Amino acid sequence: MNEKIEIKKKVLSKNDEIAAEIRRRLADKKIVALNMVSSPGSGKTSLLEKTLTAMNDRLNIALIAGDVQTENDAQRLLRAGGKQVRSIVTGGACHLDANMVNKALEEIDLTGVEVLFIENVGNLVCPSGFDLGEDKKVVLISTTEGDDKPLKYPSMFRRSSALIINKTDLLEYSDFSIERVRENARSINADLETFEMSCRTGAGLDPWYDWLEAKVAEKKGS
Amino acid sequence: MNEKIEIKKKVLSKNDEIAAEIRRRLADKKIVALNMVSSPGSGKTSLLEKTLTAMNDRLNIALIAGDVQTENDAQRLLRAGGKQVRSIVTGGACHLDANMVNKALEEIDLTGVEVLFIENVGNLVCPSGFDLGEDKKVVLISTTEGDDKPLKYPSMFRRSSALIINKTDLLEYSDFSIERVRENARSINADLETFEMSCRTGAGLDPWYDWLEAKVAEKKGS
Repeated sequence: MNEKIEIKKKVLSKNDEIAAEIRRRLADKKIVALNMVSSPGSGKTSLLEKTLTAMNDRLNIALIAGDVQTENDAQRLLRAGGKQVRSIVTGGACHLDANMVNKALEEIDLTGVEVLFIENVGNLVCPSGFDLGEDKKVVLISTTEGDDKPLKYPSMFRRSSALIINKTDLLEYSDFSIERVRENARSINADLETFEMSCRTGAGLDPWYDWLEAKVAEKKGS
Repeated sequence: MNEKIEIKKKVLSKNDEIAAEIRRRLADKKIVALNMVSSPGSGKTSLLEKTLTAMNDRLNIALIAGDVQTENDAQRLLRAGGKQVRSIVTGGACHLDANMVNKALEEIDLTGVEVLFIENVGNLVCPSGFDLGEDKKVVLISTTEGDDKPLKYPSMFRRSSALIINKTDLLEYSDFSIERVRENARSINADLETFEMSCRTGAGLDPWYDWLEAKVAEKKGS
């Protein structure tokens, strides 16, 4: 299998080159780029819909929505008021890579953009290995998935900067413990900032919006 | 990237060889082998716990539990009464492959075993491409994940024989429609047998147990 490992290294090093280029470009324009990762159905698109509705007047937001098949997420984000939304259909691939993002960026006018959301493929494993040139990875977990997930998929939690615990409205219908998931996540990555929210009811979203604005202010001051 | 495609083909063809060998071995012993696939947290382990509790006296069941990290699932299955449970920790890999299963099988006494469950890594993309020598793939989806998932991850639904819709107790707290998920799944794979259940409440599990017994009877008659 050495041949396989060699090829994988080559692919990753090519990916890293393109990601570094993207990172430079976005830094020049003082854009906060967030790579949104999670299992399928944890609520990435719902969070971005809510964020667009609440923040579209306050922040200039561009979005790239990745999916294995269909452009449903991109359509949802357009309906939620997204001004610049680009779709990447990976056609079977289990993660976005920097090259796909680079191509999508060609169709986005970055002038004045303050936040770029990149919604990755719903997959808690593979996207963790591919740098997309983002500032931070934001990992979502929903309370219906079980509080053991950080231990079972450590790489994603290790490489993320923020953890969003979604679907808190369903807490009472499962054995999921907020305390335990925080503890599990922090045993992997002590620096994780965490948010608890329900994108369905809207509860708990304000701290997330504040965080976004703070990141944009930091970037502009940098 | 042709080099990458070539390597992938080689890996898959080696995998298929081993899978074919496993399939022959299991067929000789008239064992029904089911490859359980889903997103993280859809309830694969919960379903197997329930199945062990209900069927351990009626069926001779062996289990292989795959995970990226931790042996938690295998521990849970042992606690639920599993007599032969083997754990595969993939150490980062996003799916099980036939070689891993082959090694786990070396530690299982297959004499008298009627059903072999292989619980795959929680990932709705990558496990679809790797034959493990199973009779059938069984895909789970939980009602909290959204009824669009078959359209977004078609490969897994195309290659599965049965669809388990889990967490029906949470139906009233989301916009998930059983009818729509069935329709979406059948637009990808018209032959999918479907089950609706809540592993939490135990509702709807009997048809699944009946199906298992029927598959065992068919296999013995074959």
